[in-house]
Amino acid sequence: MLVKLSVEEFSQILGSNSPAPGGGSVAALSGALAADLVSMVCNLSIGKKDFESFQTEISKTLQESQTLSKSLLKRVDLDTEAFNSVMAAFKMAKDTEQEKTSRAEAIQKGFKEAVLSPLGIAQECLEVLKLAGRLLGKSNSNALSDLGVASQQAFAGLEGAIMNVKINIPSIKDGDFVAETSSKTSTLLEEGRRVKDNIYEFVFEHFG
Amino acid sequence: MLVKLSVEEFSQILGSNSPAPGGGSVAALSGALAADLVSMVCNLSIGKKDFESFQTEISKTLQESQTLSKSLLKRVDLDTEAFNSVMAAFKMAKDTEQEKTSRAEAIQKGFKEAVLSPLGIAQECLEVLKLAGRLLGKSNSNALSDLGVASQQAFAGLEGAIMNVKINIPSIKDGDFVAETSSKTSTLLEEGRRVKDNIYEFVFEHFG
Repeated sequence: MLVKLSVEEFSQILGSNSPAPGGGSVAALSGALAADLVSMVCNLSIGKKDFESFQTEISKTLQESQTLSKSLLKRVDLDTEAFNSVMAAFKMAKDTEQEKTSRAEAIQKGFKEAVLSPLGIAQECLEVLKLAGRLLGKSNSNALSDLGVASQQAFAGLEGAIMNVKINIPSIKDGDFVAETSSKTSTLLEEGRRVKDNIYEFVFEHFG
Repeated sequence: MLVKLSVEEFSQILGSNSPAPGGGSVAALSGALAADLVSMVCNLSIGKKDFESFQTEISKTLQESQTLSKSLLKRVDLDTEAFNSVMAAFKMAKDTEQEKTSRAEAIQKGFKEAVLSPLGIAQECLEVLKLAGRLLGKSNSNALSDLGVASQQAFAGLEGAIMNVKINIPSIKDGDFVAETSSKTSTLLEEGRRVKDNIYEFVFEHFG
């Protein structure tokens, strides 16, 4: 498992001449780190008098950010597996007609997985962004830069995941699947930008 | 050392109730991962016939991205150390006049370090962004999404580091230092945006 490697080892393997892990796994990791920063800001705000009236909301946010972090860390590995299954499909035998059909089907199945995987990452990154937005003005202001970094990492994860959707879409022949996915990516990007801009405005206004 | 922890352990410590590691270390890690993706794209383009005429440039880029990755990984730990030294200064004795002076000096020294550390992260993230820009149209197009994710992570690292500069600046009393730093952060952000927008335009135009 990639997430069992040390940060240093993961960095080395990422930079190697193997195409996996690649951008999809990095997008998932970026989202997980964003979720962790949200958790930290919650932890630094729980039990503080200034935020007494928001304790229930903060505790709920913490629970959700911890769940999202775990899920996104799993996706670091899942995205690399999705990529590898496309590669494996391409290596299948194609001597007989039946083999050709099986191979073509496996390739299509693989590409759909290689689209659905980053789509799931993008969706969860948007959830993380929304959690960060929920804490604005309701959490420890000493950690405002951490909330800012959380939103950047979550949005970078979202956009990065969408790029991984977009690079695989042209290989998919199922028109309905393509149309549905394209519509979902537009909505995710639009909503993500809105939430992120809102957080940025708050953070940069505070910094002056 | 933080980078010797597994990715999973780093994620857990980040989300804990300790303010360090925080956003500054995440910004540095984001830059390192971006540099690794640049290295990967170089490695996937070296020895490929389509990019024969760019081999010298690609090899040079690879060398630079590997150096930047190592430096940014070191900064993951250095940024947390900088933060901890501010915290340590605040805990110094302040009973006598001399102790008060020593403590105030240590706090100012600590805050300057807590500004210079993310400033260095931002500068190196900009370098990574420039390397990604250099590869546009000169590298394996199968890895175009990876180049896109590299630019997102590098820019998120840059912006995240700047937020960490901005949150510490108000604590610094040295006016010249503040003026010089503010001017540097503006230039870094401006240049970073320009390079990133350029990469995005190329990548999204390609995806259609």
